[in-house]
Amino acid sequence: MAAPSLLDQLIEALRCLPGVGPRSAQRMALHLLERDRPGGERLSRVVHEAMARIGHCSVCRTLTEHETCAVCSDTARRRDLVCVVEAPADVLAVEQATGFRGQYHVLLGHLSPLDGIGPEELGLDRLEARLDGGEIREVILATGTTAEGEVTAHYISEMARSRGIRSTRIAHGVPLGGELEYVDRGTLSHAFEGRREY
Amino acid sequence: MAAPSLLDQLIEALRCLPGVGPRSAQRMALHLLERDRPGGERLSRVVHEAMARIGHCSVCRTLTEHETCAVCSDTARRRDLVCVVEAPADVLAVEQATGFRGQYHVLLGHLSPLDGIGPEELGLDRLEARLDGGEIREVILATGTTAEGEVTAHYISEMARSRGIRSTRIAHGVPLGGELEYVDRGTLSHAFEGRREY
Ligand SMILES: [Zn+2]
Ligand SMILES: [Zn+2]
Repeated sequence: MAAPSLLDQLIEALRCLPGVGPRSAQRMALHLLERDRPGGERLSRVVHEAMARIGHCSVCRTLTEHETCAVCSDTARRRDLVCVVEAPADVLAVEQATGFRGQYHVLLGHLSPLDGIGPEELGLDRLEARLDGGEIREVILATGTTAEGEVTAHYISEMARSRGIRSTRIAHGVPLGGELEYVDRGTLSHAFEGRREY
Repeated sequence: MAAPSLLDQLIEALRCLPGVGPRSAQRMALHLLERDRPGGERLSRVVHEAMARIGHCSVCRTLTEHETCAVCSDTARRRDLVCVVEAPADVLAVEQATGFRGQYHVLLGHLSPLDGIGPEELGLDRLEARLDGGEIREVILATGTTAEGEVTAHYISEMARSRGIRSTRIAHGVPLGGELEYVDRGTLSHAFEGRREY
């Protein structure tokens, strides 16, 4: 066999994208080559930049190419509320769906002792330091409604309670076992408004 | 407004891919950043190479990074049959679906005088030269079954007839108005076998 053609390599490389099977990858490759080479060049450049430069916010751990993300740097936002989510996608979902104008803490996972994911892996030492800072008066627990998400929420609520800080859990409307990212905006907004003491 | 974040730029750049809306683009961007940076780096590299190096075969006009494509360079293939298709995707479809082992001519379009697409734009001067070469004994017309595809097939069949070369049209099973690329393999294979004199 000869080396795969560059077109075959392109089709194969596109398959690293989620939801892209062999047929869509082929369609994408031919579209770029035949109809949108400038778009392809731009895609190549931006993907390279993003992979090289995007890291995690030193305060909240969401994805950003800066030392601190746009939310953490925004002095107009409330500093007494912190919303705890599992993933950067959840930050985007909350920002797009709700009127929340506070801070975040992004766990980048959930407690899962069997997988070696404890409080440290979730940056909870950093969250504790923020809670000790004295500005935060409410922790909004917006982890997923999976078993691990609930355990994680419980753990963090205890962290808050021991410091006399209230914690609330978003609840109404989020389907059980559902991932926050896939909840429609209306439901998520409603769940946010309907949060209760944890 | 501040400049868009690199993450927003990445989401926007991914939307140049066909079938990728804002939600899928966001999911793709986060997937690359959180779970597959090596895949992203590879994608960036291969897309860049492909955009810069893939051109058209000097013989058949399909996409290739070489002077002549793998099919045209393959000395084991039949040189007496040439299959005329509209697009590189059709070459891939025929190769994947049928047992065809001859040559191709890729029109990169179809006759469309109102859009300024005449015989020259479809490389028909080059096809004529190949027909004049004396090796080709059958032209298989595998253009689409749209009105333009039929007109184009008719035009090429006249080119062949004036040189005493037979032309056949793939027919059975290809749905009217259908694009070759989207026809399932079985149908396409059947249509190929069932081609008739044009
Ligand atoms: Zn941040
Ligand atoms: Zn060729």
